[in-house]
Amino acid sequence: MGKIHFASRVNDLKASFIREVLKSTVKGGAIPLAAGNPSPDAFPVQEVKEITGKILTDNPIVALQYGITEGYEPLREILRKKHQVKDDEDILITSGAQQGIDLSAKTFCNEGDAIICETPSFLGSLSAFRSSLLELSGVMLETDGMNIDQLEEKAKTGAKAIYVIPNFQNPTGITTSAEKRRKIYEIACKYNIFIIEDNPYGDLRYVGDEVPSIKSLDVDGRVVYCGSFSKTLSPGLRVGYVWAKKEIIQKMIILKQVIDVHTPVLSQMICNEFMRNYNFTQHILKLRDLYKKKLMLMLDRIAEDLPDTLKVNAPSGGLFVWGELPKGVDVIDFCKKSLENGAAIVPSIPFLVHGDENISAIRLNFSTPSDEGIIKGIEILKQITDNR
Amino acid sequence: MGKIHFASRVNDLKASFIREVLKSTVKGGAIPLAAGNPSPDAFPVQEVKEITGKILTDNPIVALQYGITEGYEPLREILRKKHQVKDDEDILITSGAQQGIDLSAKTFCNEGDAIICETPSFLGSLSAFRSSLLELSGVMLETDGMNIDQLEEKAKTGAKAIYVIPNFQNPTGITTSAEKRRKIYEIACKYNIFIIEDNPYGDLRYVGDEVPSIKSLDVDGRVVYCGSFSKTLSPGLRVGYVWAKKEIIQKMIILKQVIDVHTPVLSQMICNEFMRNYNFTQHILKLRDLYKKKLMLMLDRIAEDLPDTLKVNAPSGGLFVWGELPKGVDVIDFCKKSLENGAAIVPSIPFLVHGDENISAIRLNFSTPSDEGIIKGIEILKQITDNR
Repeated sequence: MGKIHFASRVNDLKASFIREVLKSTVKGGAIPLAAGNPSPDAFPVQEVKEITGKILTDNPIVALQYGITEGYEPLREILRKKHQVKDDEDILITSGAQQGIDLSAKTFCNEGDAIICETPSFLGSLSAFRSSLLELSGVMLETDGMNIDQLEEKAKTGAKAIYVIPNFQNPTGITTSAEKRRKIYEIACKYNIFIIEDNPYGDLRYVGDEVPSIKSLDVDGRVVYCGSFSKTLSPGLRVGYVWAKKEIIQKMIILKQVIDVHTPVLSQMICNEFMRNYNFTQHILKLRDLYKKKLMLMLDRIAEDLPDTLKVNAPSGGLFVWGELPKGVDVIDFCKKSLENGAAIVPSIPFLVHGDENISAIRLNFSTPSDEGIIKGIEILKQITDNR
Repeated sequence: MGKIHFASRVNDLKASFIREVLKSTVKGGAIPLAAGNPSPDAFPVQEVKEITGKILTDNPIVALQYGITEGYEPLREILRKKHQVKDDEDILITSGAQQGIDLSAKTFCNEGDAIICETPSFLGSLSAFRSSLLELSGVMLETDGMNIDQLEEKAKTGAKAIYVIPNFQNPTGITTSAEKRRKIYEIACKYNIFIIEDNPYGDLRYVGDEVPSIKSLDVDGRVVYCGSFSKTLSPGLRVGYVWAKKEIIQKMIILKQVIDVHTPVLSQMICNEFMRNYNFTQHILKLRDLYKKKLMLMLDRIAEDLPDTLKVNAPSGGLFVWGELPKGVDVIDFCKKSLENGAAIVPSIPFLVHGDENISAIRLNFSTPSDEGIIKGIEILKQITDNR
């Protein structure tokens, strides 16, 4: 067989830069400041073991047999309650929030349609949109969310959807203000555009009060809300969900049916049991406490070791600190040197929607490394800076 | 918000006819001859419970943390051994074989490209191809596989892939002969077409000898083989895999990354542990014994109760008996009456690639119902026939 002619959607896709960095992290034993993994201390191992034993004793056939595409009904039910889902709305269980985002884009957008994204934004979503051959249109993020004038400018020229991570955004840590959430929703209404609200980190707030979701403003059913158990319970189980108008959920169910039939039932039952019969709220408080300490430690070390190198806006939650580098610093070179010296970090480049944005920054994760790892990692960045 | 404008790929998709029948089965307590579910007696419940307890004791963080898109390495390793995967080939773990099929189509085909399918064929795959906006080109199935002249005719006019279920096909139960497998491969080579070989039922052979897979003939890497644990261990865990040339697997990994990041690790670890440290071969033999008895019972009852109504070719394996109805019988009406009388069966219509094929048949599943269910179910079909 000669040269293989692949479909256009995979021809130009490259493996996630971050995942490649992660592989070298695992291989080389570098300090893991690159990934967005939960801390090994964050998993309720004993509870999951107890729950799984119970499921496979009391209800094994349900766990092992085919399920319905919609998802495990008791889990959908408790999520309907959690979000006060309205009568004309519903919940669809997805295989991680990533699937919710991908399904949303595929449900609304044909090839060539425009989708508006914050820039920088979550690489996994940008890649999903690119693989659906959408035209990505980036709107600059400010410290309180998207630049609204630019958003309206882009919306005016036509787009099918706006993709937003309003809480502790990946990669910047930025939280969109209540005022900007309202404005984003108003613009979506004015130009008849869907909103994909991605909220994997919402529960992980360490400072300040919760800001109401864009979905909570949604009177006409144009917002699809993507939630996840990956940051609160376990990413390995791959359970997320979509909350949207019934009419939209129906289309997504049909699409999910041909993609993976349904999300594994055992994974769903574990999430359901943990939410219903274990202290989920208490667990979240434990996570907040764990991660807040790590965040504060990282911010302290940066203030101490890198006062002139990294310009940081302290995030109110999530898993990441975003640090802007001084003008003239080659960000790729900086990240390579960091990896060579034993700390894996990620440059801003893969997160940029267009690639030519005037942004030179690094993303630092504080949930995965140990406290010693955080201290050592920032020290390594200081050494590189001092040697420049 | 006014009328929602969905993307073309979901606009015309309808919920699976079969899944709708299944819902009424569950609600109405009808005898389940419609689904393709494993028998409740087929699950190694005790073993899965033991395995899961062991995993969550010895290796909980691996099970609950993010995994890599490629899949859990020990499971890939044992599948490489099972299939004697060559150096330039590899295994990708998928979320069920359905995802393997969908990924294959998306990797090879752009919108509008032609894909050749047996007709009738598995609805889940036909729907996946339709949702990718492919042009489906059906080739009539004969008792030993596709009509080869028709296949060549279709291949000549241009197609990107040929989709085949060579063993105990769903819905017809037909096994493609060794000779026709060679011819299908030759035609694919001649016209430079990929082959998607879907083999979920291969291990469930009750009569005769195994026929070598099309993949085993593949000298130039044009065959993608999709395997599954759904029929042998558990469909609820959603673990399948793709075996193909490394270059193809690489593209699929990138595509899977944006679809669901990875297949749940716990599910993969359960499959791995069951294959390595439990008697998988013994378990398969047990399933063969269980299902062979059910198949023989169903064939007996059909021969006894419906000698002139159903024309049946006894399948050598799998989960389905395909029965052609006499000319003039309205197949939809027949299935509706059957459901009203307490037996859920599926008509041929949703399995047809074009819809106007001259086929009027029903698909009967023998793995899900109890023995009494099989006897009662065929009796119900006899009553309907007698009352016509």
